[in-house]
Amino acid sequence: MAANKPDPRRLISVQSHVVTGYVGNRSATFPLQLLGYETDTVNTTQLSNHTGYGRFGGMRLDAAHLQSVFEGMEKNGLLRYGRMLSGYTPSPTALSVVSDFVKKMRSYNPELVYLLDPVMGDMGRGYYVDKECLPLYQELMSSATIICPNQFEAQQLAGQEITSLQTLKEVIEKLHALGTPNVIITSVVSLPPSDIEKIGAKVDGGMILVGSSADPSNPTHNQPWCIQFPELEDYFVGVGDLFSALMLGFFRNEHMEPSLKSASGSAINTPLAVAAELAVAGVQGVLHRTLGFIEKEQIPDNYDQLDEVEKRVAKARRVELRLVASRNEIEQPQIKFHAKPLP
Amino acid sequence: MAANKPDPRRLISVQSHVVTGYVGNRSATFPLQLLGYETDTVNTTQLSNHTGYGRFGGMRLDAAHLQSVFEGMEKNGLLRYGRMLSGYTPSPTALSVVSDFVKKMRSYNPELVYLLDPVMGDMGRGYYVDKECLPLYQELMSSATIICPNQFEAQQLAGQEITSLQTLKEVIEKLHALGTPNVIITSVVSLPPSDIEKIGAKVDGGMILVGSSADPSNPTHNQPWCIQFPELEDYFVGVGDLFSALMLGFFRNEHMEPSLKSASGSAINTPLAVAAELAVAGVQGVLHRTLGFIEKEQIPDNYDQLDEVEKRVAKARRVELRLVASRNEIEQPQIKFHAKPLP
Repeated sequence: MAANKPDPRRLISVQSHVVTGYVGNRSATFPLQLLGYETDTVNTTQLSNHTGYGRFGGMRLDAAHLQSVFEGMEKNGLLRYGRMLSGYTPSPTALSVVSDFVKKMRSYNPELVYLLDPVMGDMGRGYYVDKECLPLYQELMSSATIICPNQFEAQQLAGQEITSLQTLKEVIEKLHALGTPNVIITSVVSLPPSDIEKIGAKVDGGMILVGSSADPSNPTHNQPWCIQFPELEDYFVGVGDLFSALMLGFFRNEHMEPSLKSASGSAINTPLAVAAELAVAGVQGVLHRTLGFIEKEQIPDNYDQLDEVEKRVAKARRVELRLVASRNEIEQPQIKFHAKPLP
Repeated sequence: MAANKPDPRRLISVQSHVVTGYVGNRSATFPLQLLGYETDTVNTTQLSNHTGYGRFGGMRLDAAHLQSVFEGMEKNGLLRYGRMLSGYTPSPTALSVVSDFVKKMRSYNPELVYLLDPVMGDMGRGYYVDKECLPLYQELMSSATIICPNQFEAQQLAGQEITSLQTLKEVIEKLHALGTPNVIITSVVSLPPSDIEKIGAKVDGGMILVGSSADPSNPTHNQPWCIQFPELEDYFVGVGDLFSALMLGFFRNEHMEPSLKSASGSAINTPLAVAAELAVAGVQGVLHRTLGFIEKEQIPDNYDQLDEVEKRVAKARRVELRLVASRNEIEQPQIKFHAKPLP
């Protein structure tokens, strides 16, 4: 009953909300509940569907609204979280409010496990948020336990391009230097073939995820690693949000909780690598389960007559994730892809 | 992939959202997901916590916003629902928008199973929404498959007080006459002791829930019934919302799905009574599980020094439901209280 007293099983997620489909908080909430967290959600939007449809109803919720929600929670002693997750935030002002909120929470709980997904853009498209977010994210990194940028975001945060194994390691070092002990780069797409072979991965063998922990108290953990896993053909939305939720859900704070056992076959035994193997397996399981539904669904006869706008909508609708049907895959991921040390 | 094509396992819930605790959509979503429904949520509020705290941040979302969300969904072919749930709606204009939305959905899916919880007030407090909602709810009842008013709401909708078994039956008839085939009155509190004994319940034996189905094609179902179950001492919020979600989740549409087996010991075998026995058992399970947490939680030393505002907040915070921890109770309710026919 005590006010603002942390409980390790309580988690708050600050992300977007869509009515239909699974991105942002919709991708994160059910999986985190299944993993046993009392998961509270602050929605930064309420849209009919994700923006990848090209057409949507609803709105973004502004910084003043978020501020009002956070203040209500603090006054009522509800900042009891052991964990926090944040993702897409609709504006630099909203991001400032989230940043202040994280610092407030850490003042109540120095052991807060905070996963920051610094959503800004991607390699194909560049920025899709206001560039003013970049310095705010860089500053927020000193409050984060884990960050999960993609390659584009990692490069922006570090101020350096990844063109080789060497520059990849330099980027990781720069990200750690900004104050985050655990770094995941969710997809590294620009390594030359010789470097891909050097890290024990296959050229054209799928996505490469890279992780690194900087633990001054346990230098055996300071070994970057990678996981390679197949890319699925269809283009799914919300997968990154699902991944970051599972990362946070499976990550064990060694100071406070028993570790999860690493899978047999794993060469790396850090809490970050164990969580990443489970999260990759969970995501792959959800994607395969979702594919099963898509294959059974008939494409309507009039598809070829649709204009480009309607074709885009029809495609987006078809490939929405099926999280409820994928429950077993989330709760009991079957690990097939293991972390390997980077040379 | 076809637009607006109904899928019986897709469900939409239109209710309030709070960040912390479980009322409205927060009470409904996780349980309905556990029961296997792909559950989409339209939030009519985003508040830091429920209003019973006496203090909260955030806001209600207006009718224009809801309209924009619903239009986005329809244009994108996303009205694919087999089921719908609606509860607290913040204004008569918002309720009008929800009402139009229900009719639109029924035009895509005549078999839509729609549970309407006509949230207006309760016996102790009278109205806590604008009275203009009453005629709108009465009109909406012809689109509903099930309604779940409490006694206050049932009386307002029927335009008659419940003072006896006789008037209870008259109210039920009037509710059916407004066009809803399945009626639950969640708590009947004003029967005289002689009538309580007549229905096979105990005076001071707990809450009395009454149900009735009017099925012209199956007159054996037209038998009102009641379930009596113990009231728990602490005052929990969000229990009605949890109940209505479980009612909808456990209700089987006999035209489309195999029936759930009624529990051994049940005298009434209608889809409504079977669902009510399961929903009551689920709610009781959640309350007992939540009580276990409350009993372990220490009351802070300074409680007696708090002013009335802070005492109210501290109490509300303490008795929040624990839905994630109550997962087994939701998925496998243990039925202890059975439906009995009303004489």
